[in-house]
Amino acid sequence: MKALVYTGVETLEYRAVSDPVANQGETLVRIDSVGICGSDMHAYLGHDERRPAPLTLGHEGAGVTSDGQRVTINPLVTDPTSAASRSGRENLCPSRQIISMPPREGAFAEWVAIPEGNLVAVPHHITFEQAALAEPIAVSWHAVRLGLAAMHPADQRRAHVLGGGAIGVAAALALKAMGVNEVTMSEPNVARAEYLRKVCGINVVAEPEKNVPLVIDAVGIASTRAAACAVVSPGGVILHIGLGSSEGGLDIRRITLQEITLIGTYTYTAQDFRDTCAAMFEGRLGALDWFETRALADGAAAFTDLRAGTTHAPKIILKP
Amino acid sequence: MKALVYTGVETLEYRAVSDPVANQGETLVRIDSVGICGSDMHAYLGHDERRPAPLTLGHEGAGVTSDGQRVTINPLVTDPTSAASRSGRENLCPSRQIISMPPREGAFAEWVAIPEGNLVAVPHHITFEQAALAEPIAVSWHAVRLGLAAMHPADQRRAHVLGGGAIGVAAALALKAMGVNEVTMSEPNVARAEYLRKVCGINVVAEPEKNVPLVIDAVGIASTRAAACAVVSPGGVILHIGLGSSEGGLDIRRITLQEITLIGTYTYTAQDFRDTCAAMFEGRLGALDWFETRALADGAAAFTDLRAGTTHAPKIILKP
Repeated sequence: MKALVYTGVETLEYRAVSDPVANQGETLVRIDSVGICGSDMHAYLGHDERRPAPLTLGHEGAGVTSDGQRVTINPLVTDPTSAASRSGRENLCPSRQIISMPPREGAFAEWVAIPEGNLVAVPHHITFEQAALAEPIAVSWHAVRLGLAAMHPADQRRAHVLGGGAIGVAAALALKAMGVNEVTMSEPNVARAEYLRKVCGINVVAEPEKNVPLVIDAVGIASTRAAACAVVSPGGVILHIGLGSSEGGLDIRRITLQEITLIGTYTYTAQDFRDTCAAMFEGRLGALDWFETRALADGAAAFTDLRAGTTHAPKIILKP
Repeated sequence: MKALVYTGVETLEYRAVSDPVANQGETLVRIDSVGICGSDMHAYLGHDERRPAPLTLGHEGAGVTSDGQRVTINPLVTDPTSAASRSGRENLCPSRQIISMPPREGAFAEWVAIPEGNLVAVPHHITFEQAALAEPIAVSWHAVRLGLAAMHPADQRRAHVLGGGAIGVAAALALKAMGVNEVTMSEPNVARAEYLRKVCGINVVAEPEKNVPLVIDAVGIASTRAAACAVVSPGGVILHIGLGSSEGGLDIRRITLQEITLIGTYTYTAQDFRDTCAAMFEGRLGALDWFETRALADGAAAFTDLRAGTTHAPKIILKP
């Protein structure tokens, strides 16, 4: 089959690779649509030691199984017998794997192998492009769920989201789906901000108000962490989703003196993924139209454009 | 009256000062016992801009009111009409004050003025020295309560405490009082560690086990934050109580990838303070004998000894 292979720092090659093999309990999915994630970019730039070249990246896939079922893929492969999985926290399973990280090849390819239990059937009124958004939305759905659970019951249900990439947009949508209607967002890219206002109806603000009880850092760099610490209200909650950089930004003194809760969040539980799909399919997460599509064969150019910041839509979806 | 006054960096003078004046709703308490806190040391070293010289420090006081009632003092003075106070979080009240910080003089003195609602009556089987421990224990009681509430219900109730000062010891005692029986502690000072094993029955370990669901940093410096991040289990909770230094130590990458919750905690609610006193008075927090006493007139020497690390007991109590 053909795949878009990460072959070295800032290099992607669209080339022939071996067909994947479905192990016991697994099935093959013919990929129709697969999104580019910030973590794919991270690997492409050579910043993720867990993803050494050569490797097929991509973990936001939707397509058709070999027996014709329309599906979207939960790319997180976990051990159902681990204590974490048994307590409903598959994302904390110590033997967790994700497609696009060895030993599992990713979905920037014509086919991918995945356990059958990781598939969610997609109804016909949802396109494959929309279905491929399930994974990033599930990340934010999970984070928002943790954040709302950690909030003090007396606090107003208001939130600010830092970063208008797919995770930030999905967080705003998940917040709305969970009843948080007062949501603002910071996004420094002017063209992206304008897109989000027009296409997604998101309240992108130049300067966030202070004293917001729930703040979502969907970027994860020093400056967004610093902004999160400055904006959050005493007793409030910061969700830290992004992995932009690992150093600096947290105001430990304010976190302590103002009793801030900082929650790191990673992916989603299997139930979160299913709940996200249900919300998408029922229209509770909006029109799901905030993407553009490219041919998988042109994937290298998409990475270049993403890096240059010239794409306005929060998500690029590749089509094998 | 006489008071121990912080007059400049590393300088304390036992000298005559004006008698305090009780404003409306306040009463005067004749101090019998008052503990030295890490924050007093912080101010003494000139590291707390909120506590400029000259100032009477000390906020862990117990004594007798002008009408003869034996009391211990909640030193946090808050506005009962603020949203924070009305939601039971007086410690987050934006106009909060604490005795020993302007405009309120502290309790390293013969008398202190305090709102009547901040007093808790002390039964006769509790000494004033023991009663003066209420404040630091309440800090830890509050932190442990927040930590247990944030833990996943499937996680084992095991905890590790970093630091064997009064806050760390009180955290170990509060954990036990709340049903967490598997508690270990790290304390690098060998003499202090031996004291804690013998006097307090605390399991001080040379090297903590990994994967502890609840970790309490009762020091708050870069190395204890780094240790907390290394020891806590995936999905676990770190309580950050100390204000030793504000920079460094947090492993933001692990916090994110392993979904760690970091909670900054500051003082206690009014209910926490009362609950702590009740637990102390009922014997649920142990023998409350982990202190040594000095005359307030010799307070300067106590600070020197504390700084040199030559005191074994976690708390020094001064007697005016």
